[in-house]
Amino acid sequence: MTSNTVAELLAQKTKTEKVSVKGWVRTFRANRFIALNDGSTLNNIQCVVDFENFNENLLKRITTGAAIHVLGELVESQGKGQSVEIQVKELEVLGDSHPVDYPIQPKKHSFEFLRKNAHLRTRTNTFSAVMRLRSSLSFAIHKYFTENGFYNMHTPIITGSDAEGAGEMFRVSTLDAKHPPLNEDGSINYKEDFFGKETNLTVSGQLEAETYAMSLGKVYTFGPTFRAENSNTSRHLAEFWMIEPEVAFMDLDGNMDLAEDFLKDVLNYILEHNADDLEFLEKRLIDEEKSKPQTERSPMPLIEKIKFVVDNNFKRVSYTEAIDILRNSKPNKKKKFNYLISEWGADLQSEHERYLVEKHFKCPVILFDYPADIKAFYMRLNEDGKTVRAMDILFPGIGEMVGGSQREERLEVLKEKMKALDIPEEELWWYLDLRKYGTAVHSGFGLGFERLVMFATGMGNIRDVIPYPRTPQNAEF
Amino acid sequence: MTSNTVAELLAQKTKTEKVSVKGWVRTFRANRFIALNDGSTLNNIQCVVDFENFNENLLKRITTGAAIHVLGELVESQGKGQSVEIQVKELEVLGDSHPVDYPIQPKKHSFEFLRKNAHLRTRTNTFSAVMRLRSSLSFAIHKYFTENGFYNMHTPIITGSDAEGAGEMFRVSTLDAKHPPLNEDGSINYKEDFFGKETNLTVSGQLEAETYAMSLGKVYTFGPTFRAENSNTSRHLAEFWMIEPEVAFMDLDGNMDLAEDFLKDVLNYILEHNADDLEFLEKRLIDEEKSKPQTERSPMPLIEKIKFVVDNNFKRVSYTEAIDILRNSKPNKKKKFNYLISEWGADLQSEHERYLVEKHFKCPVILFDYPADIKAFYMRLNEDGKTVRAMDILFPGIGEMVGGSQREERLEVLKEKMKALDIPEEELWWYLDLRKYGTAVHSGFGLGFERLVMFATGMGNIRDVIPYPRTPQNAEF
Repeated sequence: MTSNTVAELLAQKTKTEKVSVKGWVRTFRANRFIALNDGSTLNNIQCVVDFENFNENLLKRITTGAAIHVLGELVESQGKGQSVEIQVKELEVLGDSHPVDYPIQPKKHSFEFLRKNAHLRTRTNTFSAVMRLRSSLSFAIHKYFTENGFYNMHTPIITGSDAEGAGEMFRVSTLDAKHPPLNEDGSINYKEDFFGKETNLTVSGQLEAETYAMSLGKVYTFGPTFRAENSNTSRHLAEFWMIEPEVAFMDLDGNMDLAEDFLKDVLNYILEHNADDLEFLEKRLIDEEKSKPQTERSPMPLIEKIKFVVDNNFKRVSYTEAIDILRNSKPNKKKKFNYLISEWGADLQSEHERYLVEKHFKCPVILFDYPADIKAFYMRLNEDGKTVRAMDILFPGIGEMVGGSQREERLEVLKEKMKALDIPEEELWWYLDLRKYGTAVHSGFGLGFERLVMFATGMGNIRDVIPYPRTPQNAEF
Repeated sequence: MTSNTVAELLAQKTKTEKVSVKGWVRTFRANRFIALNDGSTLNNIQCVVDFENFNENLLKRITTGAAIHVLGELVESQGKGQSVEIQVKELEVLGDSHPVDYPIQPKKHSFEFLRKNAHLRTRTNTFSAVMRLRSSLSFAIHKYFTENGFYNMHTPIITGSDAEGAGEMFRVSTLDAKHPPLNEDGSINYKEDFFGKETNLTVSGQLEAETYAMSLGKVYTFGPTFRAENSNTSRHLAEFWMIEPEVAFMDLDGNMDLAEDFLKDVLNYILEHNADDLEFLEKRLIDEEKSKPQTERSPMPLIEKIKFVVDNNFKRVSYTEAIDILRNSKPNKKKKFNYLISEWGADLQSEHERYLVEKHFKCPVILFDYPADIKAFYMRLNEDGKTVRAMDILFPGIGEMVGGSQREERLEVLKEKMKALDIPEEELWWYLDLRKYGTAVHSGFGLGFERLVMFATGMGNIRDVIPYPRTPQNAEF
């Protein structure tokens, strides 16, 4: 007899033939009611045991965390809280779970405790809901791009180029760690390393994605990227997943349209496909915030917040306008900002972004046309000679969700910029080739996947939205 | 006016309003016929220029590789080879391409040459078709698992565990490469490294995937994996993408069913979605093989071969049966194998696998129940005490496509196996926990994505099915 998943059984919602289901015991109440979960849905199925008809020693083994196999009849539930339940006819314990030793007891655990038991934390409602949503968002992303004519591209993880410039890198090597081979001048002889040169973990697939956009038209990457920065915060990971679309013949306006449409589409996907998980996480967040002062609570419940983003236009504001708003803002005048805004050209800090999004506009904001000096070398210089066609999308509670730009497509302008920043042309000969042969306007953006999952789940720490977080001093599991 | 893609225009196949299209010139014939490609499809759209009405200097800039913008009318084609064409009204060169310097001339280039110009090789028909198919297969994989109740899971790339045992690893570090900090005993002090311990690039996400299967039920990974092995062959990469499903309550038979169903589904997807690209690659392969002796040519054309796999059952054969077949085979008796098969327990080499698949069974073969001694520690020991519930799927022309097993779910048996292989329990405490708390039968497999792309495209070298291959002495781009 083939087994059913709990999701299948609950969706059926009617009396049927005999059923077989395997899963893990969440609770066993009154020696009679087993709440069984198999991960297929947030919801448990209630399995009702006539304890008089079962061996006492068998029933003792029905403990939280035990894996069991249940055979029985699916019937309309007599109790409240579920429409159907299983009248258990046969019961088998597949794997015991010691009632005291098992770390995931049926009680509230701190997220810190669950991080230390990350291999078991998806056995809780919160983390199973988070990871189902993460999976749904991942599929929604692939679906969106595929349906819109994009090709998925796997850019390299190990890179021999250190010109990406997005941050500190991890070195990848097979040289003897203690006694690496040396050149005559005492420097390390990387010619003897696996790749014959110094290599690192990628910080971005953008430059390679550009090569494919300039032949296949519309491409996107979805892969891991790395930052060797000693940032022990609730928003940074050393290893995280990034989505980077890149489109030929698209300018910055098109880029903003794409990013907004994309974000709305994938968020709408989870509204349609993950209602149970979102409702659970919404309640969780409300509970969590009860202990916080009113001013620190989320202004909207989780689902309302997601719907708000899906239904409303993002506010598009130039950097110059944003500086004006910030300069004249209350926290600036009252010197409440840690970094006061006095002049055009200042790099915006998280406090400024949050003010714009959460206090001033109260909706997602797209800032564009940033000063060239605070942005990357490959961004397209505007005709004013001092700003670049860059954009950042800022989300309430999250800050920067997307960073993108129109790319500098003019060979001479790009070369000058690289020269000014001491980026050797030999390093990026292939990137320059794109500007030599059939160059064209093109644009793209990067989206930190974990930031999106945080927004969609209401989780406050990035370590809680990826299975096994990599952070300074932590590479467990 | 919004631009159209070539794919959209060709699909329309009727006379319409004015159209706008941007792309790259493939050829410009008789100062009149531009073959324009934008990557949206293998096919070019023919743009017909009344050269009398255009500036001569403009027309000189219509060279292979140039990016242009064409405005005109879509009309029924007068010539053969296409149903529609564009009568060009306006023409703009967006980016020139020097007619002599441009590396991708309209002629046959060797794959070796194109590997050196991997940033431009998707501007050829062959590589654009290969990469579109790669993208299609990638989406088909996500779609299959999502529709079958699996959750996508991102397992860590940087791992602190060296017990995965699937091969040589790359070290990841931020320590000073030349003068790493040392302990008193002279060993490297990895406590000062970024993660506070020695870390490497993952060789497999399986062990972590097991933790999620044992809570979420059905999960899969699709991510990069690494081997620091000095294998300079047409079938090995140092960095490649792997798909690893893992399912709770599924035994080895279920695992074989899943793998077979999965492979057929994703191959069927490209038959339905990538007919143009497959037809082109089929012709390419036939051309390429014309110079080979009859015996070395593919037994079936590409599409027929894919259909054959989709339509026929894979042959399931135990290792023991396979050894009997090989022992009594002609090449074994005539001593043609490099490694002669004499005894049960021998590890099968590529020559043996190819004999079974290509000569004996002439279809994909699933070998199962291998000797425990030649397989990994986590595979489920059979009751005979000498074989494990492992399976490999062998494909014609490719060899091993899938390797999988039922996992050892019994704590004591697993501990003994680890002890025998000197794998410290402290290293895999979390993996052992799965056997302590609610253990159950579970299984999974790994599929090397590039092997699948090779099979689906008929490409003979693995470096030609991934954008930027990483191999010994090569991390260019």
